[in-house]
Amino acid sequence: MIAATRSLEELCINSIRFLAVDAVEKAKSGHPGLPMGAAPMAFVLWDKFMRFNPKNPKWFNRDRFILSAGHGSMLHYALLYLTGYDSVTIDDIKEFRQWGSKTPGHPENFETDGIEVTTGPLGQGIANGVGLALAEAHLAAKFNKPDATIVDHYTYVILGDGCNMEGVASEACSIAGHWGLGKLIALYDDNHISIDGSTDVAFTEDVSKRFEAYGWHVLHVENGNTDLVAIAEAIEKAKQVTDKPTMIKVTTTIGYGSPNRQNTAGIHGAALGAEEIALTRQNLGWEYEPFVIPENVLTHMGKSIDRGVDHESQWNLTLNDYKAKYPLEAAEFERYMSGRLPENWTQVLPSFTPEEAGLSTRKYSANMLNYLSPVLPELLGGSADLTHSNLTELKNSGDFQKGQYENRNVHFGVREHAMGAICNGIALHNSGLIPYCATFLIFTDYVRASIRLSALSQAGVIWVTTHDSIGQGEDGPTHQPVETVMSLRAIPTLTVIRPADGNECSGAYKIAIENAQSNLPTLLVLTRQNVPNLAGTSIEGVDKGAYTILDCDGEPDIILMGTGSEVSLCVSAAEQLSNMSKKVRVVSMPCWEKFEAQNAAYKESVLPKAVTKRLSVEAGISLGWTKYVGTEGDTISIDSFGASAPGKVCMEKFGFTIENVIAKAKMLLG
Amino acid sequence: MIAATRSLEELCINSIRFLAVDAVEKAKSGHPGLPMGAAPMAFVLWDKFMRFNPKNPKWFNRDRFILSAGHGSMLHYALLYLTGYDSVTIDDIKEFRQWGSKTPGHPENFETDGIEVTTGPLGQGIANGVGLALAEAHLAAKFNKPDATIVDHYTYVILGDGCNMEGVASEACSIAGHWGLGKLIALYDDNHISIDGSTDVAFTEDVSKRFEAYGWHVLHVENGNTDLVAIAEAIEKAKQVTDKPTMIKVTTTIGYGSPNRQNTAGIHGAALGAEEIALTRQNLGWEYEPFVIPENVLTHMGKSIDRGVDHESQWNLTLNDYKAKYPLEAAEFERYMSGRLPENWTQVLPSFTPEEAGLSTRKYSANMLNYLSPVLPELLGGSADLTHSNLTELKNSGDFQKGQYENRNVHFGVREHAMGAICNGIALHNSGLIPYCATFLIFTDYVRASIRLSALSQAGVIWVTTHDSIGQGEDGPTHQPVETVMSLRAIPTLTVIRPADGNECSGAYKIAIENAQSNLPTLLVLTRQNVPNLAGTSIEGVDKGAYTILDCDGEPDIILMGTGSEVSLCVSAAEQLSNMSKKVRVVSMPCWEKFEAQNAAYKESVLPKAVTKRLSVEAGISLGWTKYVGTEGDTISIDSFGASAPGKVCMEKFGFTIENVIAKAKMLLG
Repeated sequence: MIAATRSLEELCINSIRFLAVDAVEKAKSGHPGLPMGAAPMAFVLWDKFMRFNPKNPKWFNRDRFILSAGHGSMLHYALLYLTGYDSVTIDDIKEFRQWGSKTPGHPENFETDGIEVTTGPLGQGIANGVGLALAEAHLAAKFNKPDATIVDHYTYVILGDGCNMEGVASEACSIAGHWGLGKLIALYDDNHISIDGSTDVAFTEDVSKRFEAYGWHVLHVENGNTDLVAIAEAIEKAKQVTDKPTMIKVTTTIGYGSPNRQNTAGIHGAALGAEEIALTRQNLGWEYEPFVIPENVLTHMGKSIDRGVDHESQWNLTLNDYKAKYPLEAAEFERYMSGRLPENWTQVLPSFTPEEAGLSTRKYSANMLNYLSPVLPELLGGSADLTHSNLTELKNSGDFQKGQYENRNVHFGVREHAMGAICNGIALHNSGLIPYCATFLIFTDYVRASIRLSALSQAGVIWVTTHDSIGQGEDGPTHQPVETVMSLRAIPTLTVIRPADGNECSGAYKIAIENAQSNLPTLLVLTRQNVPNLAGTSIEGVDKGAYTILDCDGEPDIILMGTGSEVSLCVSAAEQLSNMSKKVRVVSMPCWEKFEAQNAAYKESVLPKAVTKRLSVEAGISLGWTKYVGTEGDTISIDSFGASAPGKVCMEKFGFTIENVIAKAKMLLG
Repeated sequence: MIAATRSLEELCINSIRFLAVDAVEKAKSGHPGLPMGAAPMAFVLWDKFMRFNPKNPKWFNRDRFILSAGHGSMLHYALLYLTGYDSVTIDDIKEFRQWGSKTPGHPENFETDGIEVTTGPLGQGIANGVGLALAEAHLAAKFNKPDATIVDHYTYVILGDGCNMEGVASEACSIAGHWGLGKLIALYDDNHISIDGSTDVAFTEDVSKRFEAYGWHVLHVENGNTDLVAIAEAIEKAKQVTDKPTMIKVTTTIGYGSPNRQNTAGIHGAALGAEEIALTRQNLGWEYEPFVIPENVLTHMGKSIDRGVDHESQWNLTLNDYKAKYPLEAAEFERYMSGRLPENWTQVLPSFTPEEAGLSTRKYSANMLNYLSPVLPELLGGSADLTHSNLTELKNSGDFQKGQYENRNVHFGVREHAMGAICNGIALHNSGLIPYCATFLIFTDYVRASIRLSALSQAGVIWVTTHDSIGQGEDGPTHQPVETVMSLRAIPTLTVIRPADGNECSGAYKIAIENAQSNLPTLLVLTRQNVPNLAGTSIEGVDKGAYTILDCDGEPDIILMGTGSEVSLCVSAAEQLSNMSKKVRVVSMPCWEKFEAQNAAYKESVLPKAVTKRLSVEAGISLGWTKYVGTEGDTISIDSFGASAPGKVCMEKFGFTIENVIAKAKMLLG
């Protein structure tokens, strides 16, 4: 074939392919196979269907696009460049995968405008997409009026074989089918190749049938390489089915156009090399130098800019109409969009006195959620089938279900991983919603990848975890966290808070909501069992991360420090030690990250260097505590797995008693 | 109905139900709902199909049974007691969920003979079952002869709605269908209730259709409450289909028999209370006191003992016949069963000198696997679709595939979580097999729950993880571990090894194999990039966990300590610092757990208390390192996420350079 005979559409598609081929070649690193095979479906989607404004990537009502197979990132960068986003220039593409570039190896929403979510780890993107679609459905149900539709966009996802093998994707697609999220449209790049070779090696299930079993609308484009009409028809059909998400299986050839390497694993994740690139150019009739795109392609795809301005203008007219007719709702909508919290929202957070009988911190958490829910209607979430154990129900709302999208209690089923990834998607919808989700602390192990991604991708999720130690009791070691809190503190930028009582729960929720507004996730670590309200605890104290709640005159002989349910042991022990004429300070340390953020003077005021006798008490591992207790200090901790027995018995057997705190303190004091 | 009219079978089933009801009531904690509903299928399975010997729970050729819905543990304990296992007496049942009992809240294989695997966290058990079935298929293919079948058992799993919602179960069942593991039979307790209420709330997919999509043989028992014939017929049919696993959906009523609470979430996880128990007794015509079982039930179910002795005797005859005909194979079979390693196996592990050009530690790992593979045919495993990145292929074997079960290279697909749970199952088959599995270090986050369970349940899995730091490079922060190594060190009893070079890789594999033999898991942390072979490293050193590889005369001014790829930075820095007349010791610390197990004198000899100037260098977080560097020491670490750029650039930008080690050391030295 001669280039001249190529249609404009083919030129556009080949532009995407060769931007990917040449960028990977220049970087000597990356994944050309997916962009080469998926370019046709991506082109049709972006050219004929997607509504977006390249000059305002954050325009609220844009269609969302996620490349769940994030390793094919050059596909997305090529689209952003060709459609006129300022975030990705041809120079950025030449810097693919280099330090400080806008075109990192995997799409990172915090690096590049036009990228909605971070999709490196497989399966996350499609689950994020469920979250975006949930957010759209919720906001549409909440704000749209019969005569004014201000929330109305699709969520499109391209996913591959890898995503479809991941459990998180299975979970997310099952619940998306249950919810009937009709504006979620997934294009499955069915190329039969994964890193280990043909999918015959490990993936021979009937994917379409599985999605039908989930309740999805399923279509098949048999020739995704060249049949652009079939792709367009399928997307059109998908849009017409409004009560089910659609999965379009698009059968393609990975690395399409590379004569020797298409349809092999060899093209998945490595540069083609000069020779094969030359052959591919010849084969596809591509006569342009690397990074040179024909003018007619740039002109055609650049029309996205005008179309985008039109879309947004049209929407602004609708919004203005809405404002005129529904001023109160419009004000609330604009507040959501701005991410601004209502004034004085913190006033609902109560304080407690030691005279008030203590509850479990999970129960305080339930109360906080329900104090906040009326003043923060943007709060929505739920549990992975542990609603009445995690205590996360909002009493002033109903269940989020198919056709009842205005409700805010979300039942995720026993799907911890998808729950997390969906909440990341809700947060990254960037429409003011504050998602929270809950499970037992131990089962953060199931969702850890998504917790990490919430921190990395700046998704302001509130992770509510309960049953936070061996105090959990009879369920035994599979349900008793030991290493879990410290493992979560290890995640960069994640704020982990383990409150000791009611006041600290108030403080924890204050931080969690503030963090969410700043696109930072927070993880709350809560007890199953009751704890007393302590003198000296405060909302402000939690904000400092660690603070003195009981002190002596002058320099302490010893500092007892604890978190959560163990702080009360420190207080009781300190009282008894004081009676023995020991000078004891008790420091409550609900949040290490907040404490680390304080200045040196404050830190020294709480933990003076001169006081080297220090004892930590936390029903978790000792690893990490040396930082605060020093090499002359000691810890009361548990470095083994727990055991099945009533919680109080477990606590006693493993040494979390007032007596043991006193004994260990005395040993330190010599 | 009057009790007298009850059939013996009904009495047996009600015995299971009331043991559960009364044990939970006594403990005031536990889950009666599942045992009450699943008792009929469990009874039919154990009474009519399962081959096992209660008096020798470890008899190799027994059918395996897993209660994947582990919260219903009383079902399993009731079966063990009624069929005559010594491990669970009626007194043990009275101690349900109490400290030190044989009847913990969830089934723990290390506590109770007759329990095959630990199934607290949902979804793990069915995936373990895939591992057990894989082990059976592999051993059968390896050892059976046309005229002598010594490996021939089924793996039965009862799983519930919760398991079926979990991604790990989806992954495992997809790959089980691919492998066509015909002797895996799963009974799905389809009771329509999970903790949040009716499954209508979050789980409305067509489960049977999904399993058909996976390639399973699917059956349905419509009345699992009373139609014992249908249950038996279904199991019989399942056994006849030998080229596909079978899923039997058994529709039941949770809490069957409790007039007011059956078919509600209220009976899932709480004691019934005296009043409802009385009504349930009346309803089911159960006239026995708590923990009293009718003699005819004990007699009938106790026949399992004689049957078991018969089964085992029969098998012993077959084995004797096999020994006579195939003495070499029989000797090898017996070696497998004993878990004994061949003599002198460690001799294949090479040593290296600094003159030998260094490879990446993943490449050394590949070499070790292939040195070991011929001498340890019990080694089998693979990767989650990263075979040629993790470098885990055994060159002397083919791919484990349907009908090619004798092969040892297992392709798990992009299913990290199932891979881990399957390997736990292989290890807990307790037939000498040593499973290994591999992914990028960062994706241990996907399989962390199973890694933890390998440690808890004493499954001797070798976890091979590669691309172990920001040195991974261009894939960027989603693929670059930062907190990951420390988070894994946090898991109790897990041995984590990060070798620095070829010798330390040899040492790492020596420990990993020895651990596997002792039912302990090991996690190897390996580089993508090349590392030099260092003077002073050794296999023996790794065994000590931390050891001096470069020393000075007399007491050091400073100790540099590192792990993995950063040890060579310490060595180079030390050489330069020596030239500046500083006395420097370099300590390589490949394995913290091994070092902690050394005596105080050894620890002092490596890290003398007197030397307080200490600097750690590890391309991971600082958390945890204070323990070794002390409060006067310092760390070179990374407490943020990484970035997309070539690995060397990342290392430089984040301070992992010889120059920075020297600079930080000088600052410490003042």
